[in-house]
Amino acid sequence: MKHFSNEDINKLEQRYRALLVNSLSGFKSANLIGTVDSAGQENLSIVSSVFHLGACPPLVGVIFRPHSVSRHTLENILETKTYTINQVNAQIYTAAHQTSARYDKTESEFEHTGLTAEYLNGFSAPFVGESRLKYALELRDHQRIKLNDTELVIGEITALHVDEIALQPDGYVDIEALESVAISSLDGYHTTKRLNRLEYAKAHQPTRIKKLG
Amino acid sequence: MKHFSNEDINKLEQRYRALLVNSLSGFKSANLIGTVDSAGQENLSIVSSVFHLGACPPLVGVIFRPHSVSRHTLENILETKTYTINQVNAQIYTAAHQTSARYDKTESEFEHTGLTAEYLNGFSAPFVGESRLKYALELRDHQRIKLNDTELVIGEITALHVDEIALQPDGYVDIEALESVAISSLDGYHTTKRLNRLEYAKAHQPTRIKKLG
Repeated sequence: MKHFSNEDINKLEQRYRALLVNSLSGFKSANLIGTVDSAGQENLSIVSSVFHLGACPPLVGVIFRPHSVSRHTLENILETKTYTINQVNAQIYTAAHQTSARYDKTESEFEHTGLTAEYLNGFSAPFVGESRLKYALELRDHQRIKLNDTELVIGEITALHVDEIALQPDGYVDIEALESVAISSLDGYHTTKRLNRLEYAKAHQPTRIKKLG
Repeated sequence: MKHFSNEDINKLEQRYRALLVNSLSGFKSANLIGTVDSAGQENLSIVSSVFHLGACPPLVGVIFRPHSVSRHTLENILETKTYTINQVNAQIYTAAHQTSARYDKTESEFEHTGLTAEYLNGFSAPFVGESRLKYALELRDHQRIKLNDTELVIGEITALHVDEIALQPDGYVDIEALESVAISSLDGYHTTKRLNRLEYAKAHQPTRIKKLG
């Protein structure tokens, strides 16, 4: 095993350190956030920092770096209080990655990447037409994380659109069947192969594999 | 596409809703958190809520539900200010899942799952011997998320141990080579297959695949 001390990590060249430290949390979700500003300018941004926060109410968190390429997305969310999250699948991962380029605020990443802005059920922020699992959110809270000046944005899911083929009878969504991708470090994209679903674990009883219909 | 309104989601049966909403953020990381209380009682808990927060300083966040089965882990972190995070791989995912059973505080999940408590370089919290990427953390901040009474715990990485075969020349860790697993919803475990690494995206230039080795 290779060992790095805290001092070793802090002394690393910036890009090396970013790739290394971004590998440590494990696989990350791959999502596109769709927003529009009050003047109607659309914005689309890939993020690997979306995480589950709670099921009741249905809450999702996202971490933003204020001066990063996703700053327009953060500004639009704070301005309009609405946004969409769209899972990235294997068919669109290169287009999704391209949204991380530094476009001007007056440029729409939809236009530059070929992804389709889709408006559903009167919700003001654009969805990604090519995504097979996507949802509308309303901003509920945001707070500065003082340790490194990042912003935690928390939204409540107000509408969900999911390809029915992936929805299992017990509520589990087979996101592997949607070819949703996982991200490693800053730039690795992966599809998945299910090992198993496991039964709810009980103390002093062996782990059991879930038998699926 | 199947559509759920916010009201539809809130009316769902509790377990169905938990499986559904936990599917929406995308693939999650799979990690074991190792702790010990001030009396020396070891604890080990699988979490899918570890996320990257920043590279400089190297910070990682974890979301805890105070009354969940991982409450002993949270208590130990607040008490000792130290913990380890250990990536779960395909060889140990069933043992890792079993740590989510409701054991008493006086029972060690290491003992009940057969995973090995390993002490490295004098760090007080136990690592998982079978994990191939693991790190020591010191608590830097914790805050209550009032919307749903969860706790955000932020730690700084103070030592890293990683299997050298996975460390690439540019700092990227090939966690797929370590057979690190990804989680879907509450109970799905997956290995991965890399599509590609992609070059840093630049506006008005096509997305390029990173040529490796």
